[in-house]
Parts: sequence; structure tokens; C-alpha cells
Amino acid sequence: MSDTDEAVTPDPEAAGSGRRGRRGGGRAGRAASRKANKPETAAYLERKLKPVEVLDEEGYAIIEANAEVILSEIGLDFRDYPSALTLLADAGADVDGERVRFPKGMCREIVQATAPAQYTQHARNSAHNVEIGGNNTVFAPNYGSPFAFDLERGRRYADIADFQDIVKLVYMLPHLHHSGGTVCEPTDIPVSKRHLDMVYAHIKYSDKPYMGSVTAAERAEDSIELSRIGFGGDLGGRTVMTSLINASSPLSWDATMLGAAEAYAKANQASIFSPFILAGAMAPATTAGVCAQSLAEALAGMTFAQLINPGCPVVFGTFAASMSMQSGAPTFGTPEPAHVNYIMAALARRLGVPFRSGGSLCASKLPDAQAAYESANTLQPAVLSGVNFMLHAAGWQEGGLSVGFEKLIMDHDQLGAMAKFAQGVDLSDNGQAMSAFRENEPGQHFLGTEHTLANFESAFYSSTVANYDSFEQWEEEGSLDTAQRAHKMWKQMLNDYEAPPLDDAIDAELTEFIAKRKEVLPDEFG
Amino acid sequence: MSDTDEAVTPDPEAAGSGRRGRRGGGRAGRAASRKANKPETAAYLERKLKPVEVLDEEGYAIIEANAEVILSEIGLDFRDYPSALTLLADAGADVDGERVRFPKGMCREIVQATAPAQYTQHARNSAHNVEIGGNNTVFAPNYGSPFAFDLERGRRYADIADFQDIVKLVYMLPHLHHSGGTVCEPTDIPVSKRHLDMVYAHIKYSDKPYMGSVTAAERAEDSIELSRIGFGGDLGGRTVMTSLINASSPLSWDATMLGAAEAYAKANQASIFSPFILAGAMAPATTAGVCAQSLAEALAGMTFAQLINPGCPVVFGTFAASMSMQSGAPTFGTPEPAHVNYIMAALARRLGVPFRSGGSLCASKLPDAQAAYESANTLQPAVLSGVNFMLHAAGWQEGGLSVGFEKLIMDHDQLGAMAKFAQGVDLSDNGQAMSAFRENEPGQHFLGTEHTLANFESAFYSSTVANYDSFEQWEEEGSLDTAQRAHKMWKQMLNDYEAPPLDDAIDAELTEFIAKRKEVLPDEFG
Repeated sequence: MSDTDEAVTPDPEAAGSGRRGRRGGGRAGRAASRKANKPETAAYLERKLKPVEVLDEEGYAIIEANAEVILSEIGLDFRDYPSALTLLADAGADVDGERVRFPKGMCREIVQATAPAQYTQHARNSAHNVEIGGNNTVFAPNYGSPFAFDLERGRRYADIADFQDIVKLVYMLPHLHHSGGTVCEPTDIPVSKRHLDMVYAHIKYSDKPYMGSVTAAERAEDSIELSRIGFGGDLGGRTVMTSLINASSPLSWDATMLGAAEAYAKANQASIFSPFILAGAMAPATTAGVCAQSLAEALAGMTFAQLINPGCPVVFGTFAASMSMQSGAPTFGTPEPAHVNYIMAALARRLGVPFRSGGSLCASKLPDAQAAYESANTLQPAVLSGVNFMLHAAGWQEGGLSVGFEKLIMDHDQLGAMAKFAQGVDLSDNGQAMSAFRENEPGQHFLGTEHTLANFESAFYSSTVANYDSFEQWEEEGSLDTAQRAHKMWKQMLNDYEAPPLDDAIDAELTEFIAKRKEVLPDEFG
Repeated sequence: MSDTDEAVTPDPEAAGSGRRGRRGGGRAGRAASRKANKPETAAYLERKLKPVEVLDEEGYAIIEANAEVILSEIGLDFRDYPSALTLLADAGADVDGERVRFPKGMCREIVQATAPAQYTQHARNSAHNVEIGGNNTVFAPNYGSPFAFDLERGRRYADIADFQDIVKLVYMLPHLHHSGGTVCEPTDIPVSKRHLDMVYAHIKYSDKPYMGSVTAAERAEDSIELSRIGFGGDLGGRTVMTSLINASSPLSWDATMLGAAEAYAKANQASIFSPFILAGAMAPATTAGVCAQSLAEALAGMTFAQLINPGCPVVFGTFAASMSMQSGAPTFGTPEPAHVNYIMAALARRLGVPFRSGGSLCASKLPDAQAAYESANTLQPAVLSGVNFMLHAAGWQEGGLSVGFEKLIMDHDQLGAMAKFAQGVDLSDNGQAMSAFRENEPGQHFLGTEHTLANFESAFYSSTVANYDSFEQWEEEGSLDTAQRAHKMWKQMLNDYEAPPLDDAIDAELTEFIAKRKEVLPDEFG
């Protein structure tokens, strides 16, 4: 179970170098776009549909009240981090050992007073800057998997080559707006050092925004320093990383995560304060219980960040899996986590901060039907709920234990479809199509009408992975299933990959910094 | 393309025999339930969540106004059916040849005056009676496929043995509330006769509600007569069939469908008036255009039925696929048909009649990831939109050309998950779980708490098809993918199948009626 815990496996990274024009990503963006054989797409998704609600005002109020009871009566532990206890006590919390109880309304008031409702995360290529919050959705890839899977090599421990390959693919995939963080664990590099190689890979092989390391305060500091170099020597107050700070659910924050969060907050970098819940184990088994606890945990974490640096960007995270009644294994794509997702998104809106969810979550060992059903059952609720930052939007496999190369390609196609869905319905005169009815008799096909010809190319989402050939033609071409087609696609993409430009001097400075740090860091695995 | 047209391939059936107690389906129901190793489930789904809306009042009003323009200015053709023209003219329509124009508001007024918002479809086993309309959802299997597919035999023309097997499986699958109609085409029996064998199979091998034949008025009459016998000799005004009347989109109704609809309306049997649209071909390429046309077509069809027999049950149907820009092939699970589904469900609610959608629609040739993504992208919008009768809820494959045995099992699992989702969130004291927080310290797992133990068994949806084993255990047991697991399941189920009771005298009367009819019917294939 602990292997699937986001908080247990991560080991992230950071950096960039800001130049180049917007829309289309300059030379590199256009090249990537050509390679991927896709139209150029927006840097992030602006949703037009209203978020879907599964509770009414009264229901949300119940959960908010319960979260306040948890915060004020049950309390949370802030472990092995004395300065946090002092800080929280000074702000009005009741501190008893490491147990912190927050008077009712205290956390909400602090967060609402200073946390931004939306922020810009800058990318090395400013055409890839993303707006996190409001009606915007940013898709980021899989995070934290110790294994990698593809049809050719099967499942094996992931290494830095896998990591680099995933970063390259994500760079080329237009509906992934963000390069992510620990897209997989490079297990061939010591834990104490791998954050340097990961952050460097995001800067070197992509120019999309990325996440920083959270597994130690000094690794967060390294991530910030690499970013400073990568962005040309001075961040100038810009937020260039959004990093994942996981609670030790239930109701605990540990020193590792608090240390990273503090480093990022001080540098005005964004943190996602995210409960990590396997319902029934790290929280009660019921949806309303999971939601109240998640709200309490996120509020406590965001309060800490706002006290460290009022106004620094924070994201309200959620992660909830259900459980197999047979084995206790985590299960995904089930109805209960979907309910949690809808409710948490609404609670974040009511609080006024950006919201983070999962995306392509699944338990399947293969990129098969189970994986697809489960992922769709996570992706749709997340988009419909109005998520702002979707982690694991593509590539998640085997309960997060593996990043799947084929799955990455397949999920990405679904992101494109959901992006089109979220644009809503065109009710312009052209959308209403009354001219088509006027030029066409009942019983006659519309294929040749002026209206169809004018709209045909952009009328429908065009899948990159689905096969629509006749059975006979499909059979003739080898009867490939979805995963086999996706396999061919990622291999071709890696073959065609061209890195975005990176200034030689910056590259040298990054490399030098990494070499120096590696000299002093111990060789620790695990 | 025409092979995937519901209106082109169907050839359905009808009947039953009303007895047995409610809840649990009496002896047969309990046996089936034991066999399927499932808890007994409700006869139909009662949704607790509010339907999701993708447009606002203004948007719906635009589409309704456009439908009235189509009805009043463009008109629809009622082909080769002179009595319909007389009937509609007498009711106030403007008839010019076969072209019928309806003064603005006429259809809406007629439908709203007499069509029921909800009706009971009786089953041979009254425990399987379903309520169609309101907050209820009824799941019915695949319809109309000329081919059958399974992993062992591959894809081949479907025959009556496939048909019977699907009926048996649907009988045993608790989340399929309805036996459906032409679950596949028994292509080994002449078209002119196969409706008799199909209706008989639904009566003989199941006791769930079913659909009647629509491919000729006399086949509808046969369906009614078989139902009369099957239900014990007298229907007594009960609605025992809900049948599928497809428009010849765009904007035409043909004599075959009108004849069947008339027969059913006169006998107080329900008809689904359903546009069949491949957007860009049978309708304009835009969502709002498809919706206005669909509304106009459905309104005209339902008006016809209400004029034949005011008050007879009618269902507002919709079916819309998008199109591959490369080949013109129909595509499924794309965003545009999802938009259409949401809008049409809302328009049906505004009109006050039950709504029918598709369910497991997909284009994939295999029960693979493409099939699952596409099906989930159809199923979720349909349930969220508030569908009342979902046709093709399980088993649809290859754009409807095939019924898939594995896909049936896999989709059925998804229906169970969606049913749980649609129940909404429990906000009772137990659901809020505050007692769990009070008995548990921060940092301690909830697995052993009284609240978890009390809720664990029913807390989460338990998938019948998903595999949650460890990678190692899964590998040891053969590394089966989802379809391979589903294959084992349906074979075991057919092995365990026991037919529901059917009175010998009724069975003999049905058999005799069928034999007599077959003597006089010609041997027509295709």
C-alpha cells in the first residue's frame, strides 16, 4: 500500500529559462507541433462549462462544519518541526505537544485573507506559461512511479532514461500543458541525488512548466537554485514551480514535507497541499468523512504556507482511492472517489483557491479495458468538477506503481477529447446551423451542403489513437489493439524528438551546479 | 455506414407471462442471483443526483425555437403512409404531398396534453417491472448487431444461438434491468420470421421486460400477440413492450416504422421515437444543429403516436454519432455526441416525456482500451444527463456491427458502478463519520475503528471484472487482461444458467402460434 502513496515514493525536481514568444511556442513549439503532427493547441484549457455539483449548499455547509470540528477538537499533528508549532501558536492555534488545534474559522480566515485565487506558473518558454485557478485546467503527467511499463520491455524498475523519455514525450504532446515532476522514479540514481537529474531533465528536454522536489528541504532549495539558473539567473519573484506537498493522512504533516513547503513558500513558489487517502485506512470509509478530513488537512497545510509567506500561491489538493473489500488493495475509477472529487472541487471554489485532482488513475497492470474504464471514470469527474491542476492526467498505471508509455499516449488522446468537451456548445449562428436546413430538403444527406463543408474539419474531435477502419481493413493491417497502436506512436515520437533550445552558458551552469552538489551529497538509495 | 444504422439492421420481438412476487424475482430471480454470485439489486435505478446541464435556459430556448422553425417552415416527410397524412392534416398540420409542416407549438401542445411523463413497463416477473421516466434509469443491452464477437470464436455473423446466449446472460446480470430487443440479428433465420424466435427467446429464457419488433406492422402485431399469450392471455391494458421507432433522418419517417408505431400505440405499448444521426451526414455537423433536428423529429413522431392513441406511452429518443474526418466512418465516445446527449435529455425533461440514450457505444473492433474509453465517454454523460431508458447499455462493439460477449460483461460492471454513483452522497450521521474521528487519533489508521468495520462491506463499489491483485500474483495467475477475465465469466455463467419458470401451457401456446405464423410467412433473408 505504501508504494502507491504519493508521499512515499516521490523525489522531484525544477528549473527553466524564460524567453521566446507566446502562442505556438516559438521555433521549438512549432517543431514539436509538427513532429507530433497536431494542430498547435492552447497553453492550458479554459473551460466554458459550469462545474458539476453533487451536493447543494446545505451539504457543503455540513462538510465545512465537520472540518472545523476536526480542526478545532480533534486537531492535527505537525511532526518533528518545532518552528511550525511556534508559528501556528503565535497565530492563535492551540498547541499541545505536536498536536495542533485551530479555533473554528481560523484557517479559513487566514487562507482567504492572503492566498491567491489564481496564479501564473511561468515556463522556460513563456508560450507555455499556465494560469492555475479560475476556469482554467492544466494537465500534468503521471507522478511518483517506481516502475515503468511498455509493451516491448514489460514492467521493470524505472531509470533516468525512462524519465527523460517521458519528459520528451510530454513535451511533444500538445494536450499535456505541464511537464510534471517525478514522472517516474529514476531508481538507478541515489535518492539523495536524483532530484538534480530530474529537474535538469525537465529544463533540458522540455520548456513546459514543471514541479520541484519535495523529499527534503535542501532538495527544494536545489530545485529553486536550478530554476534560478534555468530562468536566466533571476526569478524576479516569478512562480516557476508548483510542487506536491502530501499530508501523512490521517491528520498529520511531517517534517520532510513541511520543510519543502517552507522553502517553496519563502521563494514564492506554489505548493499543492494534498491529503493522500485510501478510504477506510487513512480516513473513514465514507465519502462525507473523507471530504471533511481532506478539507481539514488541506486547510491546515495552506494555513502554514500563508503564515510563512502571506500571498504565496497554494493549491488545494485531493487524492482519494477506494479499497478492495477482498484484499484491502487500493481501487480506482470507482464511484466513491468520483463523489469525493466533485465535492472537494466545490469546497476549493467556496474557499477561493485553485484545486488539484488526479486524472488517469487506474489499478490495471496493463493498458487494457480496465485501465481505460478506470481512467475515464477519474478523468471525467475531475474535468466536470472544474479541476485547475490535474496531476497524473496521463500515463498512470497499476495504482501508480508504473508509468505506462502506451498509457501515456492513450490518456493524452482522452485529454484532447475532454478539452473539446469542456469548451461547451457553440450557439453562434453557424453553430445553430439553420442555413443548413434551409439549403437541404428532408431526406437528403447533409454531406454536400455548404454548411457541412465549412464546418467539417473542425466539427468533431479527431482521436489520435482510435481506429475507425472497417473490420476488414483493420484485420489486413494486423488487427492491432489500442495499446499496440500507441506503442508504435511513442516510438516514432521519440525517434522524431528535437530538444527545445537551451542557452549553452545556462546549460553549462546547470551542469556545473549539479556536479558540485553531487560531490557533497551522500549516495543513499531508498 | 448503413450497417450501423439502428433503423437499417433491427428486427426485434416481444412477450411475457405475469406472475411471481416482487423484490428478488421469486425462485428464478433468487437462483439467477445466486448463480451470478451477486447481491440482489433493484429492478431499476432511482437516481438521487440532479441532472447535469450544459446549457442554460436561454440556450435551450434557442434550440426549441429552431426546432419549431424546422417543424413549421422546413417540414418533415411522412413517406408511403397516407393515413398519417390525413391524421396530421386533421389535427392542424399543413400537408403538401408527403411533406408535413406543423404550425409553431402544435406538436409540443399535443405531446404535452396527453403523453405520460412516466410509465410502468410490466415484466413477465413483476419483480422486474420497470418505471420509465422521472428520476429512474433502466439499462437495456445492445441492439441490432448483425455480427457477434467473442475471444474464442472471433467475429462472425450472429445466429439464434448467440441471441439466446445474450438473453440468458442479460437475465443473470443484475444491473441490466431490461432484456432489450434485437440483442443481435439471428441471421440464420429469415428476416420475415426471425422476430418470432426473438420474442420467444425473451419470454422463454428471461423474465425481464423486453422490446417488440418494428420492421413491419405485422411483426409488431405478432409481438403483441406473443406478449398476450406470454402474459397469460390478457394484457389488460398493461404496457409490456417498449420498442424502438427510428426516424429516417434527416426529417423523414417511413411507412415501416410508422406502421409498427401505430400498432403499438393502438395496443397501449410504448414506442421510443428516435432520430438516428451521423452528424454531418444525416444532420448538420454542429451540436446545436443536431439537437434542433432531433427535437423536431422526435416531436413529430410522438405527435403521430399521441394522435393515434392519446395517452399511450412514448419515449423521446436520441442517437448521434460524430464522424471521422479521414474516412467518414462513424465515431463514438467523442465530445460532440456527449454534448448532444446532455442537451437532448434536458429538452425531454422540459417537454415532460421520458428520455432514451445510448450507453456502451464504441467504434473499436476489440474489447480493448479504445472500446472502454469510448463506452465510458458515452455511458457517463448519459447517466449524468438523467437518461430514463438506456439502450445499448452493455455489449455494443464495432460501431454496433457486433455484439461482444466479453464487452457485455465488462460494460455491465460499469453499469453497476454508475448505479452506485447515481445514488449520490450519504450525508446521514453515519455518512458524516464524525464518530470515527472521535475514536481515532491523528496518524492512526482507521482500519480497525468501529465505524470502518460497520461500513466496510458496503462502502465501496466492488467491481466484478477489475483485477486488484499484486503484479506478482496477477502474473502467476496468467497475466490475464480484462477481456480474458470477462471471457471466463460469461462462459461460466452460461454453464450455470437456469431458465426462469414458464407455464407449460403458455409455452405450448407460444410455440404453436409461432409455428402457424411461420407456415404462412415467406422465407425472406435481408
